[in-house]
Formats: sequence, C-alpha cells, structure tokens
Amino acid sequence: MKLYESAPAPSARRVSLFLAEKGIEIPRVQVDTRGGENVTAEFKAMSVNGKIPVLELADGTAISETIAICRYLDAAFPSDHHLFGDTPLAIGKVEMWNRIAELQGLFPAFQAFRNITGVFSDRERCVEAWGEESKQRVEEFLPVLESRLSVSTYLAGEHFSVADITAYIMCSFIAKIDIHIDETYPAIQAWQASLDQREASWQSTPVKVLEKGFNR
Amino acid sequence: MKLYESAPAPSARRVSLFLAEKGIEIPRVQVDTRGGENVTAEFKAMSVNGKIPVLELADGTAISETIAICRYLDAAFPSDHHLFGDTPLAIGKVEMWNRIAELQGLFPAFQAFRNITGVFSDRERCVEAWGEESKQRVEEFLPVLESRLSVSTYLAGEHFSVADITAYIMCSFIAKIDIHIDETYPAIQAWQASLDQREASWQSTPVKVLEKGFNR
Repeated sequence: MKLYESAPAPSARRVSLFLAEKGIEIPRVQVDTRGGENVTAEFKAMSVNGKIPVLELADGTAISETIAICRYLDAAFPSDHHLFGDTPLAIGKVEMWNRIAELQGLFPAFQAFRNITGVFSDRERCVEAWGEESKQRVEEFLPVLESRLSVSTYLAGEHFSVADITAYIMCSFIAKIDIHIDETYPAIQAWQASLDQREASWQSTPVKVLEKGFNR
Repeated sequence: MKLYESAPAPSARRVSLFLAEKGIEIPRVQVDTRGGENVTAEFKAMSVNGKIPVLELADGTAISETIAICRYLDAAFPSDHHLFGDTPLAIGKVEMWNRIAELQGLFPAFQAFRNITGVFSDRERCVEAWGEESKQRVEEFLPVLESRLSVSTYLAGEHFSVADITAYIMCSFIAKIDIHIDETYPAIQAWQASLDQREASWQSTPVKVLEKGFNR
C-alpha cells in the first residue's frame, strides 16, 4: 500500500491528520503537483480525478478522493476510535458537519484560491468573479462555524471527528485567500488551539517518506 | 421522524431513491423552496444549511445534507443491502465514485443551473461566466462516466450503490442546462435504462405524504 500525496497540500493534510489520529502508518510518495506530475498520462491512468491524494493498494487498485481514502483505511484498520461516528446518530451528525465544513467552507475556499490566484491557469480555466464570490461565501460561513463551536466541543458533538479535521484544514488554508480567524471568532480560536496541540503531539511521530517523485 | 423535502428537487430525489431501494418508508413534509419556505427564520433554525432535504428525528434533532440523511437511515435500519459498501474495498470505492459523481458531475451541474438561470437570484449572487464554465465541466465529465460504465456494471463495481443514485440524478438533472445523454454515450444509456426500470418498480409503492407546507 502506498499513498501518493503532496504533503503540504490541504487534501493531503486531511488524510495525514486522519492517519495520525488513527495511528496508522503507511508509505508515502511525494508527487510534484505544481510541476504537473499529476497531469501526466501515467498519473491519470491511476487517478480518475487526476488529483492527489491517491491510495494505491497492493494489487494495484487505486482509491482517489480524500474521504474515500479515509473511509477505506478506517474500515481496513478497525479500532475503537471512530472518526466517522459509532452510533446511527453520530454517523449522521459527523457526515452532516463534515459536508457542511466542505460545502460551505473548504470547497469554496479552494474555488476562491484557484480562481483568484490562477495558480493552475496553465491547466484549468479561471473565472475571477467566481473566486471573489467564493471568498465571500467562506467569510459568511465563519459565523456559522463560530456559532456551532460556541455550543459544542467539537463540530459534530462531544467527540473529535473527521469533520473537525476538515474545518481545521479550512481554517488554516484560508490564509491564502487573505481570510484570518481573529478575535471576532473566540470559539473557533479556542477549538483551533486545542487542535494545534493535538497536531503537535502527532508530529512528534514523523511520517516516513518512502519515495520522492511519481515514476512508474 | 419526518423528512422535509421538495419532492421533485434533485437532492430530495436522491434521498427518495435511497429510501425506496432500502425499502424504508418515512413521513414526508413538502416544503415550497421556490416560494422561499426554506429561507424563513423558522426553517433556518432547524436546518443549518437552509436547504432541503432535512430529516427531523423524534427528539427534534435535525440532520441536514442528503448523504448524511442516507447514512443515518442506513445505520438506523441495518439490512443486508449495503448501498455504501460492505467490505473495506467496497466502502472505499463507493465513497470514491459517489464523490467523483458529485464533484465532477452533480455539483457543477447545480452551479451551472443556479448561475446561468439565476433561478435563486432573489436570494443568492450569481456569476453567469461560472455557470457556463461549470456546464462545460459537466460536459467534460460525461466521457469519464461513459468510460467507467463501459467496463463496470455499476459505478462502484458489480453492485448497485449510492454512487449510482448520485450519477443517475445528475444525468436527468442536466437536461435543465441543455445537456442530454445521447447515442454518443451508449454505456451511460444502457445503465440509465436499467436504473429507469429499477425506479419504475419502486414507484409502484407510492410515497405517503404526511403534510404539505412547512409550519411549526
């Protein structure tokens, strides 16, 4: 099993935080996405969406999409630490808050970044006005997140879940579109501080990188 | 338990098809989204994203987001018919293909529809150029879908799953943005025909509608 990723990219970080939290270690291969290693025919033959991260299983089966990789690993390495919820209610609430964090936060932030900066304009068409609109939608989501975290320890309830990972990655990624979590959002700040501590404890176990570069 | 929905809306249809396939019957309340019943303060107090469908449990807990509702019901009414997959590999592949169908198909189709037609311009800001771009991305996704369905009976493999429901709803919804599945896509057409038959068999058991209108 190998995880193809680009370690600093937000989607790769989501999987890394999930793995660290679950205590799962798997070999990593670093792919140079800015340099376009992920738009080659070889990479596209493996990854249906042409994106990192991709998990390649021993028999060559490839699983694309961040949350699909997390769900596969969650099922393949069962434990009592249920990041997708354990009861029907918890399962429903984790999915709901993870989707809300994605659809109202992380994905608009991605669309803002890609369309405003044109960072991938060599490979995709950009609409700057949509980037600005998406940025505004992220700004409008922050009060929703603040309101939720002012009444709940974690996003989906009293237990840490994959929804927290999604929102946490969003909160750091938005600095790239010049949105910052300031004192207007005390509940988000307190929750972020607790997750920073959690992440610091994970990082004391460094990830083993197997290979650098995508070569088949 | 009550499901607040707007029966013809694509997100409501996703839940309805899931319920029909699982053989679960629950009371429905029809919400007039075009008329804005879902943007009232009362509705927003229940639904975090202000959207239908929303599942309200007996204790008043509300679960928003289509797939979160499906996952809650899947866990609450366990059966041998696993629409989210049963093995780690199936779970990973269903999530992967459901996400691909959403992120490259259904969600761009929603963005195209909303931004081109301005159907909700009374309540959201539209960027027509993004609508056109999104439409083009949907068109570019169809060959990916055709290619997959030409080698696989269902989207995630040999078993029908929630990923098929997502892609099936997308394939009918795109008529609204003037994209049609024609003979250029024989594998999609054959798969659609088999799902039409499946849906027809479900519809012989009519859904019981409890109430009309959102009133608290």
